[in-house]
Amino acid sequence: MDEATFLTALRRLPLHPGAANLRDDTASLAGLTITTDTLVEGVHFLPTDPPEDVAWKLLATNLSDLAAKGATPEGALLNYPLSGAAWDGAFLAGFDAALRHFACPLLGGDTVSLPAGAPRVLTLTAIGRDAAAPPRSGARAGDALWVTGAIGDAGAGLAIAQGNDGPPELLAAYRRPQPRLVEGRALAPHVHAMMDVSDGLLIDASRMAAASGLAVTIDLAAVPLSDAYRAFRGGDRAARLAAATAGDDYQLLFAAGPDWVPSVAATRVGHFAPGSGLTLLDAGGPVAPPARLGFEHRA
Amino acid sequence: MDEATFLTALRRLPLHPGAANLRDDTASLAGLTITTDTLVEGVHFLPTDPPEDVAWKLLATNLSDLAAKGATPEGALLNYPLSGAAWDGAFLAGFDAALRHFACPLLGGDTVSLPAGAPRVLTLTAIGRDAAAPPRSGARAGDALWVTGAIGDAGAGLAIAQGNDGPPELLAAYRRPQPRLVEGRALAPHVHAMMDVSDGLLIDASRMAAASGLAVTIDLAAVPLSDAYRAFRGGDRAARLAAATAGDDYQLLFAAGPDWVPSVAATRVGHFAPGSGLTLLDAGGPVAPPARLGFEHRA
Repeated sequence: MDEATFLTALRRLPLHPGAANLRDDTASLAGLTITTDTLVEGVHFLPTDPPEDVAWKLLATNLSDLAAKGATPEGALLNYPLSGAAWDGAFLAGFDAALRHFACPLLGGDTVSLPAGAPRVLTLTAIGRDAAAPPRSGARAGDALWVTGAIGDAGAGLAIAQGNDGPPELLAAYRRPQPRLVEGRALAPHVHAMMDVSDGLLIDASRMAAASGLAVTIDLAAVPLSDAYRAFRGGDRAARLAAATAGDDYQLLFAAGPDWVPSVAATRVGHFAPGSGLTLLDAGGPVAPPARLGFEHRA
Repeated sequence: MDEATFLTALRRLPLHPGAANLRDDTASLAGLTITTDTLVEGVHFLPTDPPEDVAWKLLATNLSDLAAKGATPEGALLNYPLSGAAWDGAFLAGFDAALRHFACPLLGGDTVSLPAGAPRVLTLTAIGRDAAAPPRSGARAGDALWVTGAIGDAGAGLAIAQGNDGPPELLAAYRRPQPRLVEGRALAPHVHAMMDVSDGLLIDASRMAAASGLAVTIDLAAVPLSDAYRAFRGGDRAARLAAATAGDDYQLLFAAGPDWVPSVAATRVGHFAPGSGLTLLDAGGPVAPPARLGFEHRA
């Protein structure tokens, strides 16, 4: 069963009103914003990634979902598989540093053992407060589509983590993603829709469009690439497409009125219109979207 | 690193006040009670256990932690690893039935894929409300120790699930634990300390005593055994010890004043006194506690 089919089936279960029909990455309850993400060794991180970085990433990816709601972190719960003193100790050191960095204290969790040789599976649940909470589904026809920061750095960093030579800042983008909490709080009261870019710009923008019942057009030429990315992959169409379909960037993607200009560093990359589906432009003309728009889980 | 060492290390991280120093199975925040439990294939359930029963158990074990606080379920988040249409479909059917049975709607979650052949790792986070929330650490010297229901059925059921012949009600106790939500709500306002029996009566009672800074004495002869358990394992000391050190019962263990009598079906199995450690009695005299008091996770 693939992720989309499973999600459709989940929507037939008894749902809490705060689940908003499972159309967002967060739930809301009693004024709190709740999100949970699981990282799997060999899927979301490499067995060779330093445990300190895995701890950072586990917290950061969850806080990125809170950032997309404009929430402030309140606390986190950790579900942790014990796997030997060295890895566990390094993970704890990294987790300690990450909790302090993001001012997100530990609320609780669970500790388990795994069968010998099993890949590590780590879950974190983050709870935030004071969210303006723009939904993923709130984009309006005519809205501009914006994204914070640069896109593609983490995907390039993954290639470096897998053994390629490349700029250290790209490796850091992959291993130490920076959830846009400050930007999220500034944007959330003003935008119509917001989500984080976790699986790829094209697939996540398509999801925002589908949730909003709209079509989205993205201009590949406008996709913001960092200098480090351009040095590593170049800036041609293939490089822009690679950036726009790579995951793990954890930038914020948001829809806002066509005349509104955000107060944070962001780039306008497209717009919404009546209809459905994704249209890609590059160099002023349409280009065929790639078969793979980003990362999707399959069994 | 073993579970106790890891937990000690976690206590040196920045903790939320609602974490209560990680001395309980639940956290409290904004009037809510929050708990999370992970089930691992090959550790907490058997690869041959029906997916519908795994779904039930995943929800039931979490709701048991809410029951120990006297909370009413409000909602749940599911972290699920996709593993093929047949298993996923059966799990969803069982999860649907369990959510409805416990009136606990789905709030959200995350879906991931696992590397081929990896054991399934499932996490659920349950949120409850209106908890009187007696702490694990609240037992007082002189208090009586009580437990609801019968002890040992689930451990015997595990032996049956592994291929032994035995009464179907024991297998059901292992595969379909019944969180004591009604009993928990009735007891919580009146007891001094409460927790669920998940890892074994002796180890969990020892944890309550340690958290309360007290010694606990348990009378093996008083440990409540079901008729089915007696038929399967007998009622001699070995059978009583096996029951008192088996996990997965999800009964409620609570401390209350020596003259107070609970309004729900429960058995007095011991008492608390100044000091520390566990004293076991049987047939009127002391017996040496077994080396293994229950289930503990190790890497």
